Amino acid sequence: MAERERNGKITEYNTPFIEQRADPYITRADDGKYYFTASVPAYDRIILRCSESLKGLQDAEEKTIWTRHESGDMSKHIWAPELHYLFGKWYIYFAGSGGDDIWRLRPYVLECTGDDPMKDEWIEKGMMQCSDDDIYSFRAFSLDMTVFENKGEWYCVWAEKVSVGIQISNLYIAKMESAIKLKTPQVLLTTPDYDWERVDIWVNEGPAVIKKNNRLFLTYSASATGECYCMGMLSIGEDEDLLDPRAWIKEKKPILKSDREKGFYGPGHNSFTVTEDGRDVCVFHARTYLEIIGDPLYDPNRHTMLIEVKWDDRGYPVFDYANKFF
Amino acid sequence: MAERERNGKITEYNTPFIEQRADPYITRADDGKYYFTASVPAYDRIILRCSESLKGLQDAEEKTIWTRHESGDMSKHIWAPELHYLFGKWYIYFAGSGGDDIWRLRPYVLECTGDDPMKDEWIEKGMMQCSDDDIYSFRAFSLDMTVFENKGEWYCVWAEKVSVGIQISNLYIAKMESAIKLKTPQVLLTTPDYDWERVDIWVNEGPAVIKKNNRLFLTYSASATGECYCMGMLSIGEDEDLLDPRAWIKEKKPILKSDREKGFYGPGHNSFTVTEDGRDVCVFHARTYLEIIGDPLYDPNRHTMLIEVKWDDRGYPVFDYANKFF
Repeated sequence: MAERERNGKITEYNTPFIEQRADPYITRADDGKYYFTASVPAYDRIILRCSESLKGLQDAEEKTIWTRHESGDMSKHIWAPELHYLFGKWYIYFAGSGGDDIWRLRPYVLECTGDDPMKDEWIEKGMMQCSDDDIYSFRAFSLDMTVFENKGEWYCVWAEKVSVGIQISNLYIAKMESAIKLKTPQVLLTTPDYDWERVDIWVNEGPAVIKKNNRLFLTYSASATGECYCMGMLSIGEDEDLLDPRAWIKEKKPILKSDREKGFYGPGHNSFTVTEDGRDVCVFHARTYLEIIGDPLYDPNRHTMLIEVKWDDRGYPVFDYANKFF
Repeated sequence: MAERERNGKITEYNTPFIEQRADPYITRADDGKYYFTASVPAYDRIILRCSESLKGLQDAEEKTIWTRHESGDMSKHIWAPELHYLFGKWYIYFAGSGGDDIWRLRPYVLECTGDDPMKDEWIEKGMMQCSDDDIYSFRAFSLDMTVFENKGEWYCVWAEKVSVGIQISNLYIAKMESAIKLKTPQVLLTTPDYDWERVDIWVNEGPAVIKKNNRLFLTYSASATGECYCMGMLSIGEDEDLLDPRAWIKEKKPILKSDREKGFYGPGHNSFTVTEDGRDVCVFHARTYLEIIGDPLYDPNRHTMLIEVKWDDRGYPVFDYANKFF
């Protein structure tokens, strides 16, 4: 394949922020430092970058803070790490699979022994634990764990598959009793209800939460990871019961999807951060070309992209490729 | 156990309409005749009763219109038959399991070769068929199929289990292209979201639909089949998209549950019919005692009960044991 085709159409919109980093996650710490982590194409390690500025992440040194095991659990498919500060420490949530079954994905936790994620040691805290009365969570293919705080309580959202044969990936929510254990049984937050969530595979995954205007917005990714991959959204008032799935409003249409004109294919698995001057940023990955040679999962060119999140008159977020950063 | 205890407390409310008939189903045909069917304690056949009056069903002759197979599919657990007239014929939907695995429940269809369900021959139409693009439906434990019409289209709702280990029973909906085949892939209508749907087992099953006040009300049963068994409800405007699960409103509390004072234990798996003078009736089963000896599934004393459905100022149904019939 010619290089030009392989790289796809480069437009004024789709220049990657960071190349070949999928499931990108950026967070700004209380001291103002930015941290970046993501899936690497080899799916074999967890990397971190740190910078005083958002843009600085592009060229920041990338440190491998953890490497996959030689065999057994956490030896394959190291995916979608996220860095969070909760219960007084830094944690990384990520998914990995085992040697016997490379599709036995489960969510795992790393804990930082100090306050500096780049320099202090990270230790393994094992698989994320469900509540004692939950016989369902983390029993099947599960990944893409994120956590967020609301009204002084921590919540955990993750993707897990159900059904026989080809499975359906849903999103679940529970309260947390610690950084490594849930306090309540799973509640089903969203399943692929609509056509655009059911292309090739029925998938809801990659949750990310942003709070604004007294409301929580939870974006997620839907369908298989080709051109059909796109982002949907749920939202709920911050005073409502977050464990009542019927209190969440689901958008009937995707809020971000492929755009051949602007050169974005399969946008998704986003996170949120803020600029130094307080503007909201949607961090996501996308390809710049349509045709994938071989298994899309092993195509390395899901690049990290950034767009500014603007807010409409209702106080809802607007996702538009025209609002590009850098 | 003393007979008095076995029979439980008989109150002014809980005298059964028909004894030892669970999952009761009553429908009134266009010619005014009433038909009754239900699960029998032996789970081995499908019975029908017919009467010119609702009350007459109590003493009407019971005819066995179909008996389980000797082995293979439809040889065990013949459950929850329903009689419907659609696409110009009478059909019975019921669940049954196979010889190798008595828990391999699936929905099956019988078709009446004539216009008289009591006298004309019934033929097997096999398992209910999902749409050609649906790779999920009827692949796991599935039962309690009901059908209803809205705006000239027929819809099918059924219960099916998901997850590994002890499974979760959900309700699904799809449009029908014929009495024996669905036109659209499944949509998840409701899963056990709340505590009262999760007692002992996480279950939503036994759907039944009643239309009133330009709205469809879909009742269902929740939790395990002991005292915790109870009824919940969804509803939707008749002009809305019935295949959009987010358009259905789910009640946060049960609409009918056990009442020790009045002597009802584990009410559920209801259907709806109307009296000769047009009043709405909720047909359900319940036990009259709390203590069950042995497996509740093989306790025969789930009796058919009737209460009148009254309507509140919002136009929503009211289910109250005080509104007893007969």
